[in-house]
Amino acid sequence: MANTGKVKIGLIGSQFQADIHASSLKSMPHEAEIVAVASPTPGNAEKFAKHFGIARAYTDYREMLKDREIEMVSICAPNSLHAQMTKDIVAAGKHVIVEKPLAMTIAEGEEMIAVAKKAGVLLMYGEELLFTPKYLKVKEMADAGAFGKVYLVKQSEKHFGPHSDWFWDVNRSGGGAFMDLGCHGIAFCYWFLGRSPIKSVYCQMGTYVHGAKTKADDDCLCILEFANGAVGLIENSWARRGGMDDKIEVFGEAGCSYANLHMGNAMPTYSENGYGYAVEKAPTTKGWTYPVFEELWNYGTPQELNHFARCVRGKETLQSTGEDGLVVMHALYAGYASAGEGKKISMPFSAPQAKKPIDLWLNGPARRT
Amino acid sequence: MANTGKVKIGLIGSQFQADIHASSLKSMPHEAEIVAVASPTPGNAEKFAKHFGIARAYTDYREMLKDREIEMVSICAPNSLHAQMTKDIVAAGKHVIVEKPLAMTIAEGEEMIAVAKKAGVLLMYGEELLFTPKYLKVKEMADAGAFGKVYLVKQSEKHFGPHSDWFWDVNRSGGGAFMDLGCHGIAFCYWFLGRSPIKSVYCQMGTYVHGAKTKADDDCLCILEFANGAVGLIENSWARRGGMDDKIEVFGEAGCSYANLHMGNAMPTYSENGYGYAVEKAPTTKGWTYPVFEELWNYGTPQELNHFARCVRGKETLQSTGEDGLVVMHALYAGYASAGEGKKISMPFSAPQAKKPIDLWLNGPARRT
Amino acid sequence: MANTGKVKIGLIGSQFQADIHASSLKSMPHEAEIVAVASPTPGNAEKFAKHFGIARAYTDYREMLKDREIEMVSICAPNSLHAQMTKDIVAAGKHVIVEKPLAMTIAEGEEMIAVAKKAGVLLMYGEELLFTPKYLKVKEMADAGAFGKVYLVKQSEKHFGPHSDWFWDVNRSGGGAFMDLGCHGIAFCYWFLGRSPIKSVYCQMGTYVHGAKTKADDDCLCILEFANGAVGLIENSWARRGGMDDKIEVFGEAGCSYANLHMGNAMPTYSENGYGYAVEKAPTTKGWTYPVFEELWNYGTPQELNHFARCVRGKETLQSTGEDGLVVMHALYAGYASAGEGKKISMPFSAPQAKKPIDLWLNGPARRT
Amino acid sequence: MANTGKVKIGLIGSQFQADIHASSLKSMPHEAEIVAVASPTPGNAEKFAKHFGIARAYTDYREMLKDREIEMVSICAPNSLHAQMTKDIVAAGKHVIVEKPLAMTIAEGEEMIAVAKKAGVLLMYGEELLFTPKYLKVKEMADAGAFGKVYLVKQSEKHFGPHSDWFWDVNRSGGGAFMDLGCHGIAFCYWFLGRSPIKSVYCQMGTYVHGAKTKADDDCLCILEFANGAVGLIENSWARRGGMDDKIEVFGEAGCSYANLHMGNAMPTYSENGYGYAVEKAPTTKGWTYPVFEELWNYGTPQELNHFARCVRGKETLQSTGEDGLVVMHALYAGYASAGEGKKISMPFSAPQAKKPIDLWLNGPARRT
Repeated sequence: MANTGKVKIGLIGSQFQADIHASSLKSMPHEAEIVAVASPTPGNAEKFAKHFGIARAYTDYREMLKDREIEMVSICAPNSLHAQMTKDIVAAGKHVIVEKPLAMTIAEGEEMIAVAKKAGVLLMYGEELLFTPKYLKVKEMADAGAFGKVYLVKQSEKHFGPHSDWFWDVNRSGGGAFMDLGCHGIAFCYWFLGRSPIKSVYCQMGTYVHGAKTKADDDCLCILEFANGAVGLIENSWARRGGMDDKIEVFGEAGCSYANLHMGNAMPTYSENGYGYAVEKAPTTKGWTYPVFEELWNYGTPQELNHFARCVRGKETLQSTGEDGLVVMHALYAGYASAGEGKKISMPFSAPQAKKPIDLWLNGPARRT
Repeated sequence: MANTGKVKIGLIGSQFQADIHASSLKSMPHEAEIVAVASPTPGNAEKFAKHFGIARAYTDYREMLKDREIEMVSICAPNSLHAQMTKDIVAAGKHVIVEKPLAMTIAEGEEMIAVAKKAGVLLMYGEELLFTPKYLKVKEMADAGAFGKVYLVKQSEKHFGPHSDWFWDVNRSGGGAFMDLGCHGIAFCYWFLGRSPIKSVYCQMGTYVHGAKTKADDDCLCILEFANGAVGLIENSWARRGGMDDKIEVFGEAGCSYANLHMGNAMPTYSENGYGYAVEKAPTTKGWTYPVFEELWNYGTPQELNHFARCVRGKETLQSTGEDGLVVMHALYAGYASAGEGKKISMPFSAPQAKKPIDLWLNGPARRT
Repeated sequence: MANTGKVKIGLIGSQFQADIHASSLKSMPHEAEIVAVASPTPGNAEKFAKHFGIARAYTDYREMLKDREIEMVSICAPNSLHAQMTKDIVAAGKHVIVEKPLAMTIAEGEEMIAVAKKAGVLLMYGEELLFTPKYLKVKEMADAGAFGKVYLVKQSEKHFGPHSDWFWDVNRSGGGAFMDLGCHGIAFCYWFLGRSPIKSVYCQMGTYVHGAKTKADDDCLCILEFANGAVGLIENSWARRGGMDDKIEVFGEAGCSYANLHMGNAMPTYSENGYGYAVEKAPTTKGWTYPVFEELWNYGTPQELNHFARCVRGKETLQSTGEDGLVVMHALYAGYASAGEGKKISMPFSAPQAKKPIDLWLNGPARRT
Repeated sequence: MANTGKVKIGLIGSQFQADIHASSLKSMPHEAEIVAVASPTPGNAEKFAKHFGIARAYTDYREMLKDREIEMVSICAPNSLHAQMTKDIVAAGKHVIVEKPLAMTIAEGEEMIAVAKKAGVLLMYGEELLFTPKYLKVKEMADAGAFGKVYLVKQSEKHFGPHSDWFWDVNRSGGGAFMDLGCHGIAFCYWFLGRSPIKSVYCQMGTYVHGAKTKADDDCLCILEFANGAVGLIENSWARRGGMDDKIEVFGEAGCSYANLHMGNAMPTYSENGYGYAVEKAPTTKGWTYPVFEELWNYGTPQELNHFARCVRGKETLQSTGEDGLVVMHALYAGYASAGEGKKISMPFSAPQAKKPIDLWLNGPARRT
């Protein structure tokens, strides 16, 4: 492996998340490039490679890991595969990017961190909200004292359900909207508050709209208490109509701020004819819409991947770590447990018996009543 | 008492709420008029009467109750006085308007309803959100099926603390932001969802900013579960800077709507010089502001008071009742208890020992740790 | 005619404007009531009367004028009929409300004012923007000095074309979007600036979208210079998709304000199913929409009609007069002439030969090239 | 000069525009780098060079032009110097970036284009709106047919006056708000409409607020007619309070879109304390503000400069040319003439006698009356 030039990436996956990674690097191409892609479904990797001009395609990612040019591997695969893939990548001596959430279980997450540490490779956690330009500005204002002591941070991500079918199967996803989207909000609040430890978690969740196709929660409200006295309120949904919605609010003793990536960034547009693309998960481009511009840049994924590449080159210090992902995992478990028990769960919380986070809700006493 | 013409009102109070009642009736003068005002502080009632052109002023409301012309008495006094005043008014054979919240305790509320019923007078509960024009439109859309089955209703009211000092004293107010403002949100969600019974309440609250002057909660998040499967999320604050903020959001399987009475109704305005009035509790009229227009009409208080007067005349059926206020009281108690215990409280919930709602939080096991 | 009680109104018309008048008085019923309606198309008046609970219906408005109970007649008929109707109403000794624009020609307008003056009846000009609550608040801020000296006032009204077909026929309407909607903007800027005289008018107009069905202008930009040094910019369209849009902007040396009656008052709403009604001229209630609440109140028509009734009773001084309408007529003529000549037209401007305002554009030298 | 690697830039200027160029290249450093800076005021270039880590500083730009490493020179100097500097740069065999507007006179602009062409170097015109991401998305929707045939394009840029004092001196600037800001709007509309030729120009302008310090227009409305039948409306101000405002609106037979770079991108924020930076020309960071995030990226200057560097390397085709700047110059002259004459000016328009655009207004017959 070279230590200069662009960082060479191997990508696992060919669906929605993989597309975002490849498109992000196409828009910011100077620090890294994807040289190989692996996807198990025959033909998918080839098609993806062709579309994005990637040199090599594999059906078995383990074959790809033999590629000595590859320095960093990005996992854009179902949550249930994160741990094994990470171990394989680390064993091949390569750096790892894991898309959120980190893993299915806390034990898996701990092992991933341990093996990466032992091998001396970076375990980078794909939380793009830490790189979202609009949210960074709010953090910058907060750090400049604009709001005085912050007592409440809110983050919300909502849409009408995930791109890939495996999310609906709790055995592959480990959980529903809270696991899929709440991991963003937990990481965001934790980071915004200077990584103050999470003291407790409470969730209200249900399968309100998609009960016919999933056992997963499709809408969730989550309240976090932090050691510094602040509170986080996270709202997530797979049941909100009208396209993607991602926003934050920050309240402090001396001020407040409202930032919205979608309706708050958009150019309200009316079209009888429709047009190419409005925004992630938008149902139509006709009538009134809220189109986004430079969507990935506004989410921060190109900046995140560039940061990861620069970390590999030693030019920057990792801002979104496996440890961050593990903090999120603990909160996810506690959140599902709180919904299962109908009470606030104090941290630290361990649930050694649960195979996946959502079991703590599905099998909880409050749920069974 | 006449049974035709304008309904004659006696007003108890001369502060913020009393001002709203008098101003509201001045803007919609056809159904009712204030003929007397009572306030215990010497001079206050006179000054108020003079300002609003009210015929008679009293320092003792019991004197006012002897006025045979008065048909309806509006209580704009501290929460701790609601029950006794109501009993006195009812005893004088007059209809009662009680500003929110209904009372200090559930027992008080039950007694108020009972005495009014027995005397055959109306006990009208001053929840103006049931008359807020913008919110009524969202309800109308919901009832027309715009959103399909509604699974989440949100209401939020926030500002930087109440007008009158007695609110900070929990012995006079019974509670903080949750009691003062949460009563709006509870009533709103309950009404929006067709008065589906409240099944459970969970609150996260704290004294985040005003700890030096009060033991009351100054910020609260409240989650309600309703019997029909929907959820309410209520956010209240006495710690939010920048003026009043009141808004709702509604989410259903087929759509959603966002209504904001303040920033969402305003004309964004910049002024170097300032001007007369921006909005309730706005800190300044200089720089950028979000001024309101026809503030009371947009809140719905004139419409509410006109409705009450028409109910007295038998022209309309009461939409906001003492029973509604009692439902809110139960949820307030359960909410404070949930914060005190760190768990969701199932309804029905009784707390016979508590002298006021906030005691269940202040003395709760979760709080003491 | 009585001089007390509700003012009794006779309404001429049964289409869009008439509906607004009747609905407005239904929502604010204390000052006036419609006791008769006249419409020439057989059946229309009856249907309208039945719908709104109006006592009497006529096909010939002259028959209606014999009704001695009627004190005030509201003209909601094509522009080409305003002058004759006004003369007939005045001859019957009744007060007149004329919907905008005042007339087809300046001569007509002058005669209308003269006959009303001679007969001692009120000629009231239906410009509801002078009663629009949101705009009144901006005026109030301006008058309080919020913006210092105001140098630019903007008003814009746009939609995709009028309700009634007669508007497309320039012989009945006298002009297109500028005449239909520009009359609002001219009156608004004139009134906002304290009735400073209009010094010059310049218009850019065209038939951009509806050329197949009309010779009328369907989009117009109009610049007014006022004697006090301020400028008005008026934008009107019958070619703007997506529903009604009405907004103002005010700029002064010390500040500015932006007020929008539609997108700026709305609750952004998404619906898969649709619902009853979004807003005047909205194409659909499905997808994203900007529904209005209490539309007429927010436009100000109920307040305007109540004001007119109170003027008839001598309780208020007329705020929107025939003279205001005549100022608008002069500016409409000058505006069409400016577009016809490609130059700013200085006031006073007379065009004795033109049968209707739009002729000055259609036959102008700039247009013919 | 090398033909590979980063393009080496020499920068003329050390004030506001120069800062934007240097900051832009710092944020997108891969294609170009500033290796030298020249500014006549002693010390300025050194200070600037030190701040941005630029290798060499000069007081005389002609000295800098001798630097053989420099391939491209960016002119961020008063308008009156653009022509001479361009000729000197071209004579040194280097590519030229000219900040807007292109020159003081049409003759200058023509000569600049001619000398660059003859020397075979690129004359690149610094119009960043052609690279503004949000506006590009609207253009993309328009080109995808979202709006059908576009009949009206609006662009507005307003603030309370320029950064540098030389703008107020019409002998150095050549004009006021229309020249300084209108050049953006003219170029934008022209580009948005596929470079359809401008057929006519009409301007309304005045010195409404800053008359004590300048003869320049401080507010201007400009109407353009294009050969394809569409109209442009450009609004500019040096008199609008409250910080920078830049926005567009597009109207077509099938739809419309509203894009706002400032209030429409911002996170509405309230702060008692203030914070580092809100937005270009914002008066304060206290109270309510509309802070921007990644301001330069959202304006498009980094993208513009990267594009220019890539054009120098032959990787892209120049999108914003000297010829575009010359089209703008013609419209500026016509616009000032139209205000001076009170009539629409048809293109082509030549004004050989005018030393600077604003003279046509200041000395025009309409102005003198």
